[in-house]
Amino acid sequence: MSTRPSLDQIGISAGKKARLYRILYQHGLRNGTAIFLPYNHGLEHGPRDFADDPSSGDPKHIIKLALEGGFNGIAIQIGLARKFYWEFAGEVPLVLKLNGKTDIPSSADPLSPVNATVEEAVRLGADAVGYTLYVGSPSQDRDFAQYLQVRQDAERFGMPLIVWSYPRGAAIDAKGGRDSFYAVDYAARVASELGADMVKVNFPRPDHRNGVPAQYQRDVSPAAAIEAVVRSAGRSLLLVSGGEQAGDDAMIEKARESMEAGATGLIFGRNIFQRSSAESLRLIAELRNVLAKYPSAPVR
Amino acid sequence: MSTRPSLDQIGISAGKKARLYRILYQHGLRNGTAIFLPYNHGLEHGPRDFADDPSSGDPKHIIKLALEGGFNGIAIQIGLARKFYWEFAGEVPLVLKLNGKTDIPSSADPLSPVNATVEEAVRLGADAVGYTLYVGSPSQDRDFAQYLQVRQDAERFGMPLIVWSYPRGAAIDAKGGRDSFYAVDYAARVASELGADMVKVNFPRPDHRNGVPAQYQRDVSPAAAIEAVVRSAGRSLLLVSGGEQAGDDAMIEKARESMEAGATGLIFGRNIFQRSSAESLRLIAELRNVLAKYPSAPVR
Amino acid sequence: MSTRPSLDQIGISAGKKARLYRILYQHGLRNGTAIFLPYNHGLEHGPRDFADDPSSGDPKHIIKLALEGGFNGIAIQIGLARKFYWEFAGEVPLVLKLNGKTDIPSSADPLSPVNATVEEAVRLGADAVGYTLYVGSPSQDRDFAQYLQVRQDAERFGMPLIVWSYPRGAAIDAKGGRDSFYAVDYAARVASELGADMVKVNFPRPDHRNGVPAQYQRDVSPAAAIEAVVRSAGRSLLLVSGGEQAGDDAMIEKARESMEAGATGLIFGRNIFQRSSAESLRLIAELRNVLAKYPSAPVR
Amino acid sequence: MSTRPSLDQIGISAGKKARLYRILYQHGLRNGTAIFLPYNHGLEHGPRDFADDPSSGDPKHIIKLALEGGFNGIAIQIGLARKFYWEFAGEVPLVLKLNGKTDIPSSADPLSPVNATVEEAVRLGADAVGYTLYVGSPSQDRDFAQYLQVRQDAERFGMPLIVWSYPRGAAIDAKGGRDSFYAVDYAARVASELGADMVKVNFPRPDHRNGVPAQYQRDVSPAAAIEAVVRSAGRSLLLVSGGEQAGDDAMIEKARESMEAGATGLIFGRNIFQRSSAESLRLIAELRNVLAKYPSAPVR
Amino acid sequence: MSTRPSLDQIGISAGKKARLYRILYQHGLRNGTAIFLPYNHGLEHGPRDFADDPSSGDPKHIIKLALEGGFNGIAIQIGLARKFYWEFAGEVPLVLKLNGKTDIPSSADPLSPVNATVEEAVRLGADAVGYTLYVGSPSQDRDFAQYLQVRQDAERFGMPLIVWSYPRGAAIDAKGGRDSFYAVDYAARVASELGADMVKVNFPRPDHRNGVPAQYQRDVSPAAAIEAVVRSAGRSLLLVSGGEQAGDDAMIEKARESMEAGATGLIFGRNIFQRSSAESLRLIAELRNVLAKYPSAPVR
Repeated sequence: MSTRPSLDQIGISAGKKARLYRILYQHGLRNGTAIFLPYNHGLEHGPRDFADDPSSGDPKHIIKLALEGGFNGIAIQIGLARKFYWEFAGEVPLVLKLNGKTDIPSSADPLSPVNATVEEAVRLGADAVGYTLYVGSPSQDRDFAQYLQVRQDAERFGMPLIVWSYPRGAAIDAKGGRDSFYAVDYAARVASELGADMVKVNFPRPDHRNGVPAQYQRDVSPAAAIEAVVRSAGRSLLLVSGGEQAGDDAMIEKARESMEAGATGLIFGRNIFQRSSAESLRLIAELRNVLAKYPSAPVR
Repeated sequence: MSTRPSLDQIGISAGKKARLYRILYQHGLRNGTAIFLPYNHGLEHGPRDFADDPSSGDPKHIIKLALEGGFNGIAIQIGLARKFYWEFAGEVPLVLKLNGKTDIPSSADPLSPVNATVEEAVRLGADAVGYTLYVGSPSQDRDFAQYLQVRQDAERFGMPLIVWSYPRGAAIDAKGGRDSFYAVDYAARVASELGADMVKVNFPRPDHRNGVPAQYQRDVSPAAAIEAVVRSAGRSLLLVSGGEQAGDDAMIEKARESMEAGATGLIFGRNIFQRSSAESLRLIAELRNVLAKYPSAPVR
Repeated sequence: MSTRPSLDQIGISAGKKARLYRILYQHGLRNGTAIFLPYNHGLEHGPRDFADDPSSGDPKHIIKLALEGGFNGIAIQIGLARKFYWEFAGEVPLVLKLNGKTDIPSSADPLSPVNATVEEAVRLGADAVGYTLYVGSPSQDRDFAQYLQVRQDAERFGMPLIVWSYPRGAAIDAKGGRDSFYAVDYAARVASELGADMVKVNFPRPDHRNGVPAQYQRDVSPAAAIEAVVRSAGRSLLLVSGGEQAGDDAMIEKARESMEAGATGLIFGRNIFQRSSAESLRLIAELRNVLAKYPSAPVR
Repeated sequence: MSTRPSLDQIGISAGKKARLYRILYQHGLRNGTAIFLPYNHGLEHGPRDFADDPSSGDPKHIIKLALEGGFNGIAIQIGLARKFYWEFAGEVPLVLKLNGKTDIPSSADPLSPVNATVEEAVRLGADAVGYTLYVGSPSQDRDFAQYLQVRQDAERFGMPLIVWSYPRGAAIDAKGGRDSFYAVDYAARVASELGADMVKVNFPRPDHRNGVPAQYQRDVSPAAAIEAVVRSAGRSLLLVSGGEQAGDDAMIEKARESMEAGATGLIFGRNIFQRSSAESLRLIAELRNVLAKYPSAPVR
Repeated sequence: MSTRPSLDQIGISAGKKARLYRILYQHGLRNGTAIFLPYNHGLEHGPRDFADDPSSGDPKHIIKLALEGGFNGIAIQIGLARKFYWEFAGEVPLVLKLNGKTDIPSSADPLSPVNATVEEAVRLGADAVGYTLYVGSPSQDRDFAQYLQVRQDAERFGMPLIVWSYPRGAAIDAKGGRDSFYAVDYAARVASELGADMVKVNFPRPDHRNGVPAQYQRDVSPAAAIEAVVRSAGRSLLLVSGGEQAGDDAMIEKARESMEAGATGLIFGRNIFQRSSAESLRLIAELRNVLAKYPSAPVR
């Protein structure tokens, strides 16, 4: 079993530690775990993600949900942060998502262009910034160049950097797809090599082996796979994504396996806001029960 | 029904509020609504848009028309602003359009390059700047990068930012076209996510469903569609465009539906200047009658 | 008939007015008209343009010709300006051409890269700068970006900006060609929209209608076409180009029609320097006779 | 036989000399030779390189191995340097690798984008920086542009620059491949021409002659080939790479031939960490025996 | 016959004149002529150019040869300048070559990326900088952009700028090839138009007429061709390149014709260093005999 690193072991500055401490020990369960609410779907997918329940398209409604659910943070783009977050400033930590794109044009060679800066995150009182890295994209040169600027600004301002580490692009599609154990494991490692403080990944699918390298052709349990991914993330704290809406039991089990493997927390979007408020709060309660079983202290 | 947000609810700075207040409460009907005259067709389409009436090609004539018609602002490019606006400076608010392109080369991968800056808008006494965002373009990375600079400059100078949020490019053409409810709704949301203060969209066509996602395949009335679009724009004030010249009754009805849905105003170009002055003023009077029925206060 | 705008009507700064006054009222016929000698053919076409008379390849010879002919300015690239103009500095106004390219590679997607700056023009005592804009090029995004820098530098230094507004590229070829009335008219308007102080165009060919928009399909006289182009240029003073060497009578007639329509002047290169000195001076005398008939005062 | 240049013969600044002295005479065998442990495989290949022994994926384990093995330096990316090196800071020299890429997309036109700066290397107490140059890539223009910045920053901060000089891309594949004597020899020279302080190359394969220029078609022994490569590197100190894991005897022999030819040292990654610790230490001991036979003084 | 321009006729600053005076009147024959040794082949072609005589690959050996042969300067890249020139600093003028590329990838769309700056040339005590301009390349926009920076830095520091003006790319290949009179003549003119202080060209081949414009289809003697090229270079001093190794008599004759036509000197690389030292010195003596017959004074 991997172990979750403590905040004094991961080589971060006072500013980053202060903000991570606030997120992990002064919000949510206050036990070193975290559950984040990402809400950038309006940019990434468009309002169609809110079609079933129009209230899910209202940022104010979602920020309130994050508050009621006891989330450790809400991740939104600059426009929503400027126009909606100010009402709730300080009540729930803000993760300013710094890049994003629509899903309208082809995704064979993806790049998520920057639309806000770390300095703006500081100005808005954010406690972390988010950056989507498309691991495996033919445009990795431009992606890395953008990321370099973001990472250095985050260092300069003591702002924790959460990397949405997403395998994407034509080559990924040909080598097992975006959720394969190979792809997720590689993505976690890339985020670690490039200095992410936290890394968001999808739960790996070791059964997706079509075209993956030999080392990933063997039979591996999901539990073993997520444990390997946590190890690949090293001292970058791992967050596991909920992905598309799925069955509750399966989701809870994945959450449990992730935490057991040493993940720091969860980041659930559509699985939360594409339900009624009541159902959302019930699922959140279950997820919090899981997190409660995996506390860790900030120092060792 | 959506409700139009008031100026103290949308998280804007003093400078932005001062300029929006001037536009919405010290010009036009002075009741929180607006009607703008866009006049960048000479760049976007060339003088062919002025062929039927040569006087429509004379910027001085058009600025006078904006004054006589009681418009809340005129949107022009830097060249016309420098050489023609000074005669009427202060009499009608200036919206400096910061980017634009000709329609001569292919529009499969469009980008509207910047040709002026927010600082120049300040120097010219403008009350807002305009930026065309081609939502769905394969060049969204370069578009977002340009836009980031404009948005940050607008924040720095307290200058309201109006986004012409236009679905465009080969992928849009393949997914229902530029006027589909899907495309317009997505475009409104993207502008909101990226921090537009106002967003200009075309009136959505819910009957354009060829290739749109499943969520937009159902039967929806135009009134319901524009209401959804207003909601997607969130706290970015919505302006509905007149588009190509169309029948007056249909246009008035769309204007009414837009205002009823919570739009802040209208932005009508060719429908205004491609008529005789008399006919223009008559249409403007009708549109003002609509706007007069939807007043709102600057604070709540 | 269009009317030539006076220098106090076109919204320019003191520096730009001082330099335009020098060009229009202290050189040439000193009556508000102008004839310029462009001499950038060595870069654009190579020495082949000087094949018939080797002395035409000698910049010193050409600058002397500009002096003897009483031109209002000579337009050259930075290399010739640095190494040849200093001998004649102040005697004839210098228009520093800031961009240019060879005609060796394909011209389907043209861009004229910048090779000198407005600041260098100031340092050399120039009275104007020239920029070639390829209207309709698929690379208009890069063109506009370059141009923005040049235009802003020209504002900063009070330097008049002359735009060589040239329809070019594969789409232009498919829509009537570079000299069609449609293309020239659009080009004049684009220069005006983008803030040119003067704009150089070719004389329009209303008979080139193959592929042009419907508005340009009707029968129009050359005189009516050039008048429309002057109107499209608005408050950007219009210069009509001589183009390739042509019959003298036809050329004089075009010059007359241009001035009658409200053009400010002419810009003739190959038609001048591809002749013997004696023949050049004779043609220049005829062109000056035309200009003499169209004086205008600097203020109204 | 080529001779290894001494530190006072290679035209370097005091800062570069101080740091190279530290690497070559205060670590490892302290005799002017060096053996480096590169550990950037997690970015370049992904965790699959650690599949046989999970502990090889743990950066802490590897840094300890570098200490125990008496290496002259460990080369890692910024993420590992920030989060893992601080525990061992100063105990083993840090070579901060400044660029890198995944191997997921096509490598026909490779570029290794920069993800950290020389200034960060200074801040972390590094004694050298590493840069991968893809010699022969169609993207050499962008590669050289990046490299220029890195080289100048390295001059500015007195930081030794080690170039991973790797022949890559479609043209290399067609001209004998990446390990041909032709390609390796050219790569060593390019690094020298561009100012590398040290250059890392693969051991050349003179038998790979398919498509190489005439000059490389003759029969050459491996010993003669590596000697030529050392000469081509000139006053850039040569490091020979271990490459993929190979038979121990062959490797030791290549190491011996390299040192005999005038190389300064070795840089072995997978051959070291893809073994058990015991086997690694045994191989390291053998390599150190080779290095011990080729001492050189820092000055002459 | 063209005449070589004197240093006070070419509009250069004091700093440029001081350095050119040093090159032309304090080294070599000290009579206003020059012979340069270019030694950037290790980057442009790789070590294969040194295959016949390994000592030709040793920069120290080559710099010594430049000294013994009484050259007016040696042109090398930054790496060799930093690591080898310091031993001989001041003894022979340094021309720092600022850009370069390998010949491994396709040359259909060539660009020679910058790898050093004028400021570095100043720091190294260079008396000139060299820049390769690929006249006719489809990438001329990026080439001109790079060149603009170099030219302006050279002005700023009073550093003479030598342009390697090379016709290259697919379009050149289709229009008579790189050595045609058409191509060389155009290249000389482009360098002049863009402000080169000296321009290096190949000796023109008027017999290469396949695909050249009509003006270059006539019969022209080599002597007349080089004279035309000197005229096209105008006040940019012309250097004629030796090109690939050729018969001595033919080479001497070309050198004589070049000097007779008004060239300032020669720039011979492979013809010099691909011989034994004795043979090199004999050829140099013959070339110096030619130069001795064409003295010119620095002022008139």
